[in-house]
Amino acid sequence: MQAPRTLYALTVTQVLDLLKNNTITVEEYARSLLDRFEEKDSTVKAWAYLDQELVLSQARALDQMPNDQRGPLHGVAVGIKDVINTKDMPTQFGSPLYQGHQPGFDSSAVAILRAAGALIFGKTTTTEFTATNSGPDTTNPHDPNRTPGGSSCGSAAAVAGLQVPLSLGAQTGGSIIRPALFTGIFAMKPIYNAISPEGQKTFSATFDTFGFFARSIEDLQLVADTFALKDDVPPRDISLKEASVALIKTPMWARAGPGTVCAMERAVTILKNSGVMVEEVPFPTEVCDSEALRQMQNVIISGEAQVAFLREYRLDRTKLDPEICRPVENNSNYTHKERLQALDRYASLRPIIDKVAAKYSAIITPSAIDEAPLGLNDMGSPVFNTLWTASSSFCSICSFLANQVQGFHMPVINIPAFTGAHGMPIGISIVAGRFCDQHLLRISKVLSEPLMAEGGWKVMA
Amino acid sequence: MQAPRTLYALTVTQVLDLLKNNTITVEEYARSLLDRFEEKDSTVKAWAYLDQELVLSQARALDQMPNDQRGPLHGVAVGIKDVINTKDMPTQFGSPLYQGHQPGFDSSAVAILRAAGALIFGKTTTTEFTATNSGPDTTNPHDPNRTPGGSSCGSAAAVAGLQVPLSLGAQTGGSIIRPALFTGIFAMKPIYNAISPEGQKTFSATFDTFGFFARSIEDLQLVADTFALKDDVPPRDISLKEASVALIKTPMWARAGPGTVCAMERAVTILKNSGVMVEEVPFPTEVCDSEALRQMQNVIISGEAQVAFLREYRLDRTKLDPEICRPVENNSNYTHKERLQALDRYASLRPIIDKVAAKYSAIITPSAIDEAPLGLNDMGSPVFNTLWTASSSFCSICSFLANQVQGFHMPVINIPAFTGAHGMPIGISIVAGRFCDQHLLRISKVLSEPLMAEGGWKVMA
Repeated sequence: MQAPRTLYALTVTQVLDLLKNNTITVEEYARSLLDRFEEKDSTVKAWAYLDQELVLSQARALDQMPNDQRGPLHGVAVGIKDVINTKDMPTQFGSPLYQGHQPGFDSSAVAILRAAGALIFGKTTTTEFTATNSGPDTTNPHDPNRTPGGSSCGSAAAVAGLQVPLSLGAQTGGSIIRPALFTGIFAMKPIYNAISPEGQKTFSATFDTFGFFARSIEDLQLVADTFALKDDVPPRDISLKEASVALIKTPMWARAGPGTVCAMERAVTILKNSGVMVEEVPFPTEVCDSEALRQMQNVIISGEAQVAFLREYRLDRTKLDPEICRPVENNSNYTHKERLQALDRYASLRPIIDKVAAKYSAIITPSAIDEAPLGLNDMGSPVFNTLWTASSSFCSICSFLANQVQGFHMPVINIPAFTGAHGMPIGISIVAGRFCDQHLLRISKVLSEPLMAEGGWKVMA
Repeated sequence: MQAPRTLYALTVTQVLDLLKNNTITVEEYARSLLDRFEEKDSTVKAWAYLDQELVLSQARALDQMPNDQRGPLHGVAVGIKDVINTKDMPTQFGSPLYQGHQPGFDSSAVAILRAAGALIFGKTTTTEFTATNSGPDTTNPHDPNRTPGGSSCGSAAAVAGLQVPLSLGAQTGGSIIRPALFTGIFAMKPIYNAISPEGQKTFSATFDTFGFFARSIEDLQLVADTFALKDDVPPRDISLKEASVALIKTPMWARAGPGTVCAMERAVTILKNSGVMVEEVPFPTEVCDSEALRQMQNVIISGEAQVAFLREYRLDRTKLDPEICRPVENNSNYTHKERLQALDRYASLRPIIDKVAAKYSAIITPSAIDEAPLGLNDMGSPVFNTLWTASSSFCSICSFLANQVQGFHMPVINIPAFTGAHGMPIGISIVAGRFCDQHLLRISKVLSEPLMAEGGWKVMA
């Protein structure tokens, strides 16, 4: 039997084994996680809200549930990014405007997790409405002087710091994949709109995508199944020797830091040595250059943020970060015509990129420029200095395909296999075509085995 | 001074005049509306929730507000479709699953209206999650034996029956334009995602569009301005003699009933006699036939409803209409591949239709097949009988451009100018290119003058 002291360190899959055969109670598990929270919170600061009594009362209610009524995630603790509504906790969106705000109604995703038996543990920190480049004082569990990355700061830090085995996030630019890289954990962003964003603050309707963090691919798989993610054809098993991988460096490769360059090179070597066919594929020529993509992304995000934040602007603009006011005021003078052109162009590119993906078992591409930078005031240092800062920061640190697939709506998984110059984690992104989420999980599992065995980074457990 | 007895019959523009110069109080106005509600409710049944005390307490609070803090819609009563969250009233989505449900948090649109001074009057009836073809026993104010149309049944009936001058709705298929035609009032569905749908039940993320009902175009204009709808270029005044109109009958014309055929013919005659250049334009040949469009629409709506209703399905499927369960279970066996093809194809068509719209001052097209049918169990009788009933009903009664523009995301206004064989109203749709909402309002005002003067239908006042 697992000693209660270390229960907090278990993955979802591991703890479910113990809970299912009643080796431990949900309350015992919750107490171990709360001990860990007490130990780590003053340094990591991953939580915007955590009520220990509420956690324990939920845990006891779950323990009282008859075995035959228990859901597939019975007792699994989940951290909820604080832009996702919860009926029994405040949802504050990282915004002073919403201090103490109680929506009183679960988001769709939280309701589905609750129905599956999950223990909703608390609300994790976020940048303001996921849209700014600074905010919470959450630190990287691997180095308190470094950022965990944003905007899903707390969700990444809580999972990486063994405070919960699972957390929910939302990505508009790189808000899931970047913090997963910075904190050295697995994360999945499924295809756009495979999981309902209802009850989650909107930033950019075209890009906002729901996703989740965990410490193993098996755990990501459990969550994907809970949300009924399905491919048209059930994925088949592919061995390393059958697998083919497209390496897409993108036109932004020149900006990659030494950590990412080295990680990508090592990934290619490890995969080749394992028998995987790896082929460098240029960014499809039909796709406009990276600068044009970045500009399209800015135009769409800014136009949609104007709609999304009008409410808050009307309620009290003095309580908003200037980065939130800027798109509402359209300080960049973007036109609807530009927005439509960008929307239509993105739509025309999606099938082109899908075709590239369909030729290979998967695409690999960098997750971010390099390991987590020093300091907490920058969720990922901007390379560019463009008109709209929030957007430019998204598009610099995440200016690789892993970010650009946001517009292409493709599913992505971060594999935290490598380390950078300062011993911090570096991940790479594995990407598949749209609605190939189950295939992506399967191939990521296969490819991650040699990568995790030889890459150097070990996910804490 | 307006006699209090008839205050309820005023349009938004008219009542604002009286409220702004303190000729009447909000409370007096509210009492007149409540009297009208008492008089009409047993027949029309437009409301899913209306708390008279809450209305009066809001009205008194508005009366106590200093003049200089009053918003542009100060005191204007608004009915809210019961799929749109309100912090102080239940939101029940027309669903037994959500009986008495209190979200406790305003939707984005309601918050913006409240900040503008609107008096949130009550919740109007809807079909279950806007998605089924039957439900509330709301009647058409012009004939209690006829449907007001769905899914925004109550919002249309309340405005047409002089119970409020303004109401909010949401359209996925024809849920705004159809009931506006059936009840003989004006309605506007702006371009997709110009008004945030946050806090409104999702049905189909690609098609769901927020809109509103009123009894004059000036009133629609006030609401559009409140939600900051803006064109790239401010619309210029166009006289009837300068105006050009594309008449698009669509391939569904053969299915139009005599009321609609006659209304369209008379519209053309009236406009031509007024000096408008009217040109019949075939449905663009690049656009696939109507049957293919309908099938694309079904595939997208079904796939997106699967995501949108998973939560309710998991919570308690026994409380859901079979029409809601069907897409979640994917009984039609639609594939993701078909969904992606449909999404990508719709995206590729949008700029093509925009180009057609750009050649004319506006497009005119039927709003629905004919006047409101007899009976309350059918929100618009299906012509087809396809696998997924809900969707087929959307796509039959609204199988004209006014419905198909839903996928094209174009703004539409219903002009209730004509009458059918039974003296019930018939409207026609005026359509403009994407993000030409202000232009659409301007040209609709110009075109509606001869149409309303000569068409035969008079909006109640």
